[in-house]
Amino acid sequence: MQNFTFHNPTEIIFGKHTIREIGAKASYFGDRVLLVYGQGSIKTNGVYSQVIESLEKAGLYVTEFGGVKPNPILSHLEEGVLLAKRKKIGLIVAVGGGSVLDEAKAIAAGTRTDGEVWDFFVNKATIQDAMPLLAVLTLSATGSEMNPTAVVTNEVHQKKFEISSPLLFPKTSILDPTTLYSVPNNYTAYSAVDTISHVIEGYFTGDDPSTPIQDRLVEGIVKSTMESTEICLRDPENYQGRATMMWAATLALNGLPVAGIGEFNFPNHMIEHSLSAIYDIPHGAGLSIVIPGWMKFSVGDSPEKFAQFAHRIFGMATNSTEKDAEAGIDALKAWFEKIGSPVSLSDVNIPESDIEKIAENATMLANKWEMNDYTKDVIIQVLRLCC
Amino acid sequence: MQNFTFHNPTEIIFGKHTIREIGAKASYFGDRVLLVYGQGSIKTNGVYSQVIESLEKAGLYVTEFGGVKPNPILSHLEEGVLLAKRKKIGLIVAVGGGSVLDEAKAIAAGTRTDGEVWDFFVNKATIQDAMPLLAVLTLSATGSEMNPTAVVTNEVHQKKFEISSPLLFPKTSILDPTTLYSVPNNYTAYSAVDTISHVIEGYFTGDDPSTPIQDRLVEGIVKSTMESTEICLRDPENYQGRATMMWAATLALNGLPVAGIGEFNFPNHMIEHSLSAIYDIPHGAGLSIVIPGWMKFSVGDSPEKFAQFAHRIFGMATNSTEKDAEAGIDALKAWFEKIGSPVSLSDVNIPESDIEKIAENATMLANKWEMNDYTKDVIIQVLRLCC
Repeated sequence: MQNFTFHNPTEIIFGKHTIREIGAKASYFGDRVLLVYGQGSIKTNGVYSQVIESLEKAGLYVTEFGGVKPNPILSHLEEGVLLAKRKKIGLIVAVGGGSVLDEAKAIAAGTRTDGEVWDFFVNKATIQDAMPLLAVLTLSATGSEMNPTAVVTNEVHQKKFEISSPLLFPKTSILDPTTLYSVPNNYTAYSAVDTISHVIEGYFTGDDPSTPIQDRLVEGIVKSTMESTEICLRDPENYQGRATMMWAATLALNGLPVAGIGEFNFPNHMIEHSLSAIYDIPHGAGLSIVIPGWMKFSVGDSPEKFAQFAHRIFGMATNSTEKDAEAGIDALKAWFEKIGSPVSLSDVNIPESDIEKIAENATMLANKWEMNDYTKDVIIQVLRLCC
Repeated sequence: MQNFTFHNPTEIIFGKHTIREIGAKASYFGDRVLLVYGQGSIKTNGVYSQVIESLEKAGLYVTEFGGVKPNPILSHLEEGVLLAKRKKIGLIVAVGGGSVLDEAKAIAAGTRTDGEVWDFFVNKATIQDAMPLLAVLTLSATGSEMNPTAVVTNEVHQKKFEISSPLLFPKTSILDPTTLYSVPNNYTAYSAVDTISHVIEGYFTGDDPSTPIQDRLVEGIVKSTMESTEICLRDPENYQGRATMMWAATLALNGLPVAGIGEFNFPNHMIEHSLSAIYDIPHGAGLSIVIPGWMKFSVGDSPEKFAQFAHRIFGMATNSTEKDAEAGIDALKAWFEKIGSPVSLSDVNIPESDIEKIAENATMLANKWEMNDYTKDVIIQVLRLCC
């Protein structure tokens, strides 16, 4: 295990009928709320009215800011910053999935600078202050509800970049699994892929192999996500299935699975960000395309770890490390297919001839994340394995 | 999964050479420090000088308060409260194991009341305020470094009771696994037992079976603790072994394994507290005596869960739930013996004729914890299985 600091101050309120607590929690931090949400699904599933009722009961003044896109874009973010400044907002309540939370985090930082909010994303400026943010989660996948990170796309330059600062941890996140009942099966599957992707990036790329607890936490999250996803696809209103998927997604990216694993990186996310930036496909769908290809590309670097994954997740137990490792990759890919998530570029109608362009785009992020091994040529090799 | 709130604001700084950070962290909270420690082992293992150097470098005024006993006692705690009040202390730095941290937490609460500190333990008063507390952990087991609980013994009345308040979370806990190199093998074993006990109480008594992630986290902590304990007993200065044991102990009682499991209780701790209160044996040693007996007494209540434990921890996989469940209990008991922790009352020279007296004492805690099923007769039955 390597040295680490773990500090996650977000309060999680989890369970049925918990949305009604948002008003009381929010009122600790001010009385002028910016209510950030997405494309309006919260108005049809009853969440919006529960949130408004709770905020008003707590005596808060609400300014609404809807319309966040599934991959949030800079122009809308900037609009939110201007609105929050003009209305002298004191805190943000984000109601939605990871995209809504991410844009809300960026607004929280953007309102406390006189400069351009995009400067934070390109490391031209450092976040020094941020408005308090609370969240009601209605689509589970990104882990944004319990971490200090936000991803936004600059749609003009097709750059999907992220910010991270301890100031961006939500103060409180409310997770009511019943809000997931209306999530359609394809998005349930993408959520599962996203959760799994978040834990396996560190699991396979971390540079310290002496992390038995972290490994088992990751394997537990993967197994539990797989089991509960299958339950939810058969029975979308299964409370325990939704609850397990939701809590798994939160734990997957709250810092705990990677505490002590040393240096690690996000190669699958690096490549996928280009897919969703260029083609506007769901992040989880892009990940299930990239992951099996990346795993095949990388298995030779740590066959024992891939074999451990195959053994503990899928029960592979031949006497051959290499065979088990390969079989585990195939089994994960087959599972992605089984739940209806795409597993090749052609599944989402991206022609092989676009690989050059995608790789070109991905190198920008590889450079930003200082992943020097991922030259354009290497990224092309990975993408060829995703066909 | 049941509704829950999870909020653990303690910052963990984990790894080699991290003790030097205590001064800078402490200086956020004031400049007059009460340095609480135990029987002086920190003066021989080099920890004391590192802490003092760091505190002085940060410009802090240090008042020392040593002499905390392995099962901290009320009279010493009251002495600490008086000293802290007299010296107008602003914050506490606790350096030691769980006992030192627990007494320090009670001092932190005791200095902010005009009443008796014991009133908090017997629910006559509620903690409304507490001094900031930071910790440097030198003996890993109780999880006190990342939770809001403290256990103290009223030596006059032979009552080992606890307090818990969100105000008692340490602000920062520093965990340097190298401080454990000098822990003798018997205490290494007791630490392992304590860690395992903390996770299995909720695992076996939680009232919601729909908690696959929590189950796997618990199982991962148990497996990792067992593996790393064996490494440390063979090789006390094995860094990775000590690091895994240390991190496992912290995670075991930081609230995460029990988030969502619903109502649960601590029957093994309830009974063990009487053993260590009356006979002053180490807490871990008492637990390895109580646990196998309690498991045998309770296996009929949830044989599937005991069989799952046997299967996932020890690989038991016959076709009989009952046989696997029993075999898992025997395997855990055998493992306690293997690492040199006592597994029966006679191992620590407690005569069977004392069972009545022990049960009498334990019922006080059973009442306090509202464990109505645990009448004196029931506790006697459990203790008979511990002979």
